[in-house]
Amino acid sequence: MNHLKDVPLNKAYLLLNHGPSTIVTSEHDGVANVMAAAWVMPLDFDPPKLMLVLDRNTWSRHLVEGSGAFVIQLPTRQQAELTLAVGSSNGGEGDKFEQLDIRTARAKLVEAPIVEDCVAYLECKVISEPNNQEKYDLFIAEVVAAYADERAFSNGRWHFPSAELRTIHYQAGGAFFATGEAFQVSRG
Amino acid sequence: MNHLKDVPLNKAYLLLNHGPSTIVTSEHDGVANVMAAAWVMPLDFDPPKLMLVLDRNTWSRHLVEGSGAFVIQLPTRQQAELTLAVGSSNGGEGDKFEQLDIRTARAKLVEAPIVEDCVAYLECKVISEPNNQEKYDLFIAEVVAAYADERAFSNGRWHFPSAELRTIHYQAGGAFFATGEAFQVSRG
Repeated sequence: MNHLKDVPLNKAYLLLNHGPSTIVTSEHDGVANVMAAAWVMPLDFDPPKLMLVLDRNTWSRHLVEGSGAFVIQLPTRQQAELTLAVGSSNGGEGDKFEQLDIRTARAKLVEAPIVEDCVAYLECKVISEPNNQEKYDLFIAEVVAAYADERAFSNGRWHFPSAELRTIHYQAGGAFFATGEAFQVSRG
Repeated sequence: MNHLKDVPLNKAYLLLNHGPSTIVTSEHDGVANVMAAAWVMPLDFDPPKLMLVLDRNTWSRHLVEGSGAFVIQLPTRQQAELTLAVGSSNGGEGDKFEQLDIRTARAKLVEAPIVEDCVAYLECKVISEPNNQEKYDLFIAEVVAAYADERAFSNGRWHFPSAELRTIHYQAGGAFFATGEAFQVSRG
């Protein structure tokens, strides 16, 4: 966790703009859980908001509804197996952190664990929108803290130094893409 | 457009699951527009729904509110310059299709043009949610038709045959990533 550096809140959307898959952590009344989520995206710039689709049959949904908070973190290519593992079991049947031997630290501004060695973290507080939550399993949240591994993200841009630190994009059935080649296009 | 093949509606989310950037087309009362949108993601599987953030200051917003429909299309690496160009001008000041020399065809089930040579298309009808639209610029829509270039997507999986046909992920300031290396993770 030595390489983490704060990202200005008005730049937090840049962590998610390229559509990576994420891991969500949450905690309520001292009980924590971790899950995978591909359906996360920015909603606004400043103050930054994002959206998360959180199925009503997950244990994390229960925790997020209780606490009003969660953390979005971006796993790396090295953590793809972990991402699939936390996405494949529901939680509630035991401590997934312990079962999967996941090292954690504490979030800064919300009460939740964070998974170590991810390349970015967005701590979020839910903006209550009961219609969206009930009808669409859709949670809107404000990003209250953001930080990233400066080896992979600095000055508002991703610049992956190695294959291992690249973010990942989930397809289905255990199939992923790594974030690929960077290229620049001019406005012509 | 010779390689397009229908995608079963319950598999349509797989076109967007990896978080690519998109181009949005829309039309109302015979006036059409085209814009870029990175903030698009699936919301549900079957019937498929997706979400689009559509700023109130865009001409496309006016058209989508009028018609209740739009098309999400996935540009390729070859179309990154076009994607940036349609994202950089607002429309309303003239016909962007003509100005940028964009070849189009017609959508199947909604009244809108589609941009030729994209690798996937999702035709969408807006599900009216005035609170989301007014408060968050957020549009929820049902996907009513989906089709993709079978050279790049078949049997529910992306399998890009060349660098040129890869989907793209927008950062900012003209910087993109191509969708990168595919890899498979086992459930351990």
